[in-house]
Amino acid sequence: MMHFEALTVFPGMFEPYLSASIMGRAREKGIFSFEAHDLRDWTHDRHRTVDDAPFGGGQGMLMKCVPFFEAIAELTPRTEERPHVVFFSPCGRRFTQEVARELIEHPRVLFVCGRYEGIDERAYELADETISLGDYVLTGGELAALCVIDACVRLLPGALGDEMSAQDESFADGLLEYAQYTRPANYEGREVPEVLLSGNHAAIAAWRRESSLERTARWRPDLLVDAGLSQKERDLVAELLRQEED
Amino acid sequence: MMHFEALTVFPGMFEPYLSASIMGRAREKGIFSFEAHDLRDWTHDRHRTVDDAPFGGGQGMLMKCVPFFEAIAELTPRTEERPHVVFFSPCGRRFTQEVARELIEHPRVLFVCGRYEGIDERAYELADETISLGDYVLTGGELAALCVIDACVRLLPGALGDEMSAQDESFADGLLEYAQYTRPANYEGREVPEVLLSGNHAAIAAWRRESSLERTARWRPDLLVDAGLSQKERDLVAELLRQEED
Repeated sequence: MMHFEALTVFPGMFEPYLSASIMGRAREKGIFSFEAHDLRDWTHDRHRTVDDAPFGGGQGMLMKCVPFFEAIAELTPRTEERPHVVFFSPCGRRFTQEVARELIEHPRVLFVCGRYEGIDERAYELADETISLGDYVLTGGELAALCVIDACVRLLPGALGDEMSAQDESFADGLLEYAQYTRPANYEGREVPEVLLSGNHAAIAAWRRESSLERTARWRPDLLVDAGLSQKERDLVAELLRQEED
Repeated sequence: MMHFEALTVFPGMFEPYLSASIMGRAREKGIFSFEAHDLRDWTHDRHRTVDDAPFGGGQGMLMKCVPFFEAIAELTPRTEERPHVVFFSPCGRRFTQEVARELIEHPRVLFVCGRYEGIDERAYELADETISLGDYVLTGGELAALCVIDACVRLLPGALGDEMSAQDESFADGLLEYAQYTRPANYEGREVPEVLLSGNHAAIAAWRRESSLERTARWRPDLLVDAGLSQKERDLVAELLRQEED
């Protein structure tokens, strides 16, 4: 079982999401567990203060470093069970499916969730890894942690109820996923590609591979570089890109 | 007031997050409103079925296109109030702070949240815009929609309680944010840079700009290209990069 933890001033923010749907079922099945720690438990004043004004002036409040140092010292005893400590920051490594695959190699991962205008820089020395969810700013690390947990859990064996389904999708083979269709075969004139109704498995597999290549060439040509295409596929992509230009 | 909507099979998944903390306060202040629509309200069978097996075979279930067509026909009457319809897909445009700034120009935004293995390709013709949160796969669009709503709301005037605070942060000026510190000035030998304690506003502003440049040069040199640096700043960055190499 994989164990996730979060250090946060909103320990209640995770439960609704992690108790519902696929996450809830995976948790009930014992595929992962989750525990939130309230950062305010490591404050020592009556108001349980975790923030303060920034040195040098400026708008907004900054999270103090001391509660993080004390919390992580208590939550990461130096044993085999020490969790992998993840901070979020725009300075961090971009989160991708590959990073998710690496994270699930750790039996325990602790997400440190900031709020307000940010965290005192000194706290980042506690990070084993700093992740950026993308070039945008969220009000806190809680949503970022939920996204990372979600992306990780669905890669854990059994989580999707169907061992195969995480292997078929976008990024699994370095390409975008092929176009998919279900009933009706014709919806007000919008028809499903005929080959998908043919029952010819080889033709369907070929159509799907071409669909993946076409979509990747159109929307994410950057992914093609590392996708390990055959010479025939490279020729196909070159042809698709030429058609795009016309 | 900005109005967000979601079309989802988990209409209850949004409320806990959007009622708490900064989102909850901004909503109470009337800065934004939110409404979730249950996709199953546009099904016509007793089991309210939204998914079906993919044509051509394969693992997992796909969301049918018809409920989306019917729901969006009903939710987007052709008036001035028509919402901007956003789908999520790895094929979409990468979500960034810039995309968030564009989205808040729309008075109404409707997020279409997929689940299972994906959505019948034909439904995507309903999208005014398709967004990708990043190169990773989530179990559904609900978390993606929450991230986008969060990033958008905090840019709305008054949402942060402090008009300035969204202007100071990472990506606001095309650079990563400078290092920030709050009390104590010395935590077990970890000292705050002296200039920040000096009260010299010009020196502090210069230090912060340099900190931004240094962090961007180290972690996200790609951002420097469009950051509109002065010649002096370009020289400084070149010097920083030379030092990194040593």
